[in-house]
Amino acid sequence: MDVLPHADIYNEDGVVRASFLSQIGAAIADRDVLALKADVGRLHQSELGDLLEALLPEQRRALVDLLGNDFDFSALTEVDDAIRAEIVDHLPNDQIADAVKDLDSDDAVYILEDMDEEDRQEILSKLPFTERIRLKRALDYPEETAGRRMQTEFVAVPPFWTVGQTIDYLRDDTDLPDRFSEIFVIDPTFKLLGAVYLDQILRTKRSTKIEDIKHETRHAIPATMDQEEAAREFEQYDLLSAAVVDDNERLVGVLTIDDVVDVIQQEAEEDLMRMGGVGDEELSDTVLATSRSRVPWLAVNLLTAFLAASVIGLFDQTIQKIVALAVLMPIVAGMGGNAGSQTMTVTVRALATREIDIYNAWRIIRREMGVGMINGIVFAILIGLVATFWFENKNIGGIIAAAMVINMFAAALAGILIPLLLDKVGADPAVASSVFVTAVTDCVGFFAFLGLATWWFG
Amino acid sequence: MDVLPHADIYNEDGVVRASFLSQIGAAIADRDVLALKADVGRLHQSELGDLLEALLPEQRRALVDLLGNDFDFSALTEVDDAIRAEIVDHLPNDQIADAVKDLDSDDAVYILEDMDEEDRQEILSKLPFTERIRLKRALDYPEETAGRRMQTEFVAVPPFWTVGQTIDYLRDDTDLPDRFSEIFVIDPTFKLLGAVYLDQILRTKRSTKIEDIKHETRHAIPATMDQEEAAREFEQYDLLSAAVVDDNERLVGVLTIDDVVDVIQQEAEEDLMRMGGVGDEELSDTVLATSRSRVPWLAVNLLTAFLAASVIGLFDQTIQKIVALAVLMPIVAGMGGNAGSQTMTVTVRALATREIDIYNAWRIIRREMGVGMINGIVFAILIGLVATFWFENKNIGGIIAAAMVINMFAAALAGILIPLLLDKVGADPAVASSVFVTAVTDCVGFFAFLGLATWWFG
Repeated sequence: MDVLPHADIYNEDGVVRASFLSQIGAAIADRDVLALKADVGRLHQSELGDLLEALLPEQRRALVDLLGNDFDFSALTEVDDAIRAEIVDHLPNDQIADAVKDLDSDDAVYILEDMDEEDRQEILSKLPFTERIRLKRALDYPEETAGRRMQTEFVAVPPFWTVGQTIDYLRDDTDLPDRFSEIFVIDPTFKLLGAVYLDQILRTKRSTKIEDIKHETRHAIPATMDQEEAAREFEQYDLLSAAVVDDNERLVGVLTIDDVVDVIQQEAEEDLMRMGGVGDEELSDTVLATSRSRVPWLAVNLLTAFLAASVIGLFDQTIQKIVALAVLMPIVAGMGGNAGSQTMTVTVRALATREIDIYNAWRIIRREMGVGMINGIVFAILIGLVATFWFENKNIGGIIAAAMVINMFAAALAGILIPLLLDKVGADPAVASSVFVTAVTDCVGFFAFLGLATWWFG
Repeated sequence: MDVLPHADIYNEDGVVRASFLSQIGAAIADRDVLALKADVGRLHQSELGDLLEALLPEQRRALVDLLGNDFDFSALTEVDDAIRAEIVDHLPNDQIADAVKDLDSDDAVYILEDMDEEDRQEILSKLPFTERIRLKRALDYPEETAGRRMQTEFVAVPPFWTVGQTIDYLRDDTDLPDRFSEIFVIDPTFKLLGAVYLDQILRTKRSTKIEDIKHETRHAIPATMDQEEAAREFEQYDLLSAAVVDDNERLVGVLTIDDVVDVIQQEAEEDLMRMGGVGDEELSDTVLATSRSRVPWLAVNLLTAFLAASVIGLFDQTIQKIVALAVLMPIVAGMGGNAGSQTMTVTVRALATREIDIYNAWRIIRREMGVGMINGIVFAILIGLVATFWFENKNIGGIIAAAMVINMFAAALAGILIPLLLDKVGADPAVASSVFVTAVTDCVGFFAFLGLATWWFG
């Protein structure tokens, strides 16, 4: 393989080089197809994906047009959804059908699944029969399942073959998948009997029967299994690939680690985004789409903010008497909010990785209560001293210190119990925990501080 | 392989079954070594890891003692640092040395790297010469580098061998790694010339020379490369394994996708934890260790909270006149904080995945400013109406609406510019962005709202 070395197209920050970009831009402007084919044809699909994302929309479309059948469609699996949609919409269905035919089935499905039903049907109808059946098999499974992500090309042999027969078959058959790391063992009805890793075949004598070296595929993945759960199997058992089976335990495809790595990335990203109060947005989304997608979370936050404000409203007469309370009250609420979000982050992550369960939940709740108590006391002393000197009033210092201990303890409890409860009732703790925890720490913070002050000075 | 099926030891939530746990607990209490060897010996290393984590500390130590040499040390790579340290401290160095000898080098390094220097040296000195050299080679590379994570066992052949010779070598050699997916091609000085995937060997005639089917390993990983960067190479180029080379481009080991998946998980987790204001803590840490590790972030937050409080202090006379301002001011600050953290989450994630760069930064800044403006206006109208009716004062409604637009716009700017600037100066945006963004939205929120009110009501 004679490929442009990686270092050539990226700068030291891992970003596409400006010089490479302007070279491509110039070739597009000149409609210099030969130069483009030479420069772009050498790129790995993911490098071409990065190049497409760095180009301007009109350059992107021009590049795809100029390359024609030399455009590597698998690069579309490496770009943002919006950019893929833009390119796919721009191309005639004939050209897409032509390109999809040569892709691995998992890449083809990735491109087809986001298209309009009508366009997808038209493209499928233009494909050769076997190819169409293969893709439909994957597309018929629901989104985000193992069946949707699997590759329908695989190598399978009967158990009574010898290692020698298997190697001869691999040498003769030209219709093998591009790359494979295990060979499946099936009966005549495609029922999965086991699998053999390639290194096992290579280290075994030609006369040995496959059934003697096959291992049971105890990690066969049902096609309807959620992709996240399938990814967890890969992680737990260090799998490189796994057989995907239908309801009758018949082999229908293979899931490979490279697809699973994408799922793992995506799931970790989803948790992070949800905790930050953003949904499935992408950088290429428009201003309006982005602002719309962020409104619901802000609206919920507005409701809880009014709730906190009405707690303050209960004590407006005390505030009028002692304005220092208004100055100090956001400190109590803010510190509680921070401590609560620390606990919540740890809890949400532990739930996602299944590190927290019935055996250790109680121990972890006690630990968080202890941490909340200790840090509450530490910062109560600090804040009490500062407030005493600032307002030259040790009553205010004492009251804010007491409120701080109460709110830090409440924050710890809310930070662990709210995600656990949400998980228990089947809600996603990453989505909703943050807003509830802040509501608790704001309300408890204001109530404890202003309530104590009203009772003391009252 | 005759292994207990997965479904047997976990319940439907993926947690170790209570019945399995009590069965093991009873066998430990009875010191029933035979039953334990039967039940535990059948577990995959990660299942044994989960079992260890679910047991009580004294049960854990008793189990390891009872199993003796039948304890699968690779399970220690699957448990929390604290639990690994507890078990390793408990065992005599002789037994550890004996077990480490049989582990893959990457697993052995994983266990050795966290031990005391003294214990590590003692264990290394008890190992056979070649094994000791292999482990030292990896341990000499800094933590979190590819060299530290690599496996030092690999299969390498000279370029002039034929496919047939290679297969015969694999059939004869008993000292091969447990599992491998590519064969490296080296010269007599171990200089890396290329690699061949196993499926290529299987589909090629015996007489073909290795040099004719080898591909250039353009993704050879320098041993000193950061593990996170190595993981990014794996993701970008869908690698299953990669050669690790020293400064002289000599092959020293192989990095495999299963180790990389752990790194990817770990890095995603680090980002999430840092944004939530928590460090490298684990669920098994003690109360004191946890509370200490969370103090720095809370302390920084305390400073910025005092900054925000002193902004309020500037306007104490206005608040005394109109207490409604004290009731409403947390809403303006809180909404800004939320909008800012939405923008910040998207930016931090885009920086981590390198989706944001000099080509699109300006476009994304403009997009965020647009989103901030639109959502600012939407919520300004809402909040202005509610405040007008609540306090029966349309001046207050107008002032809070204006302050809201200003703060949501400031939140958008802070949410994108602060992470970008931190990244530019080489700081980790995930660690520090949150505290700066909140400081901006609190101060701007209070200043805009109270300042406008002071100017208007004068």
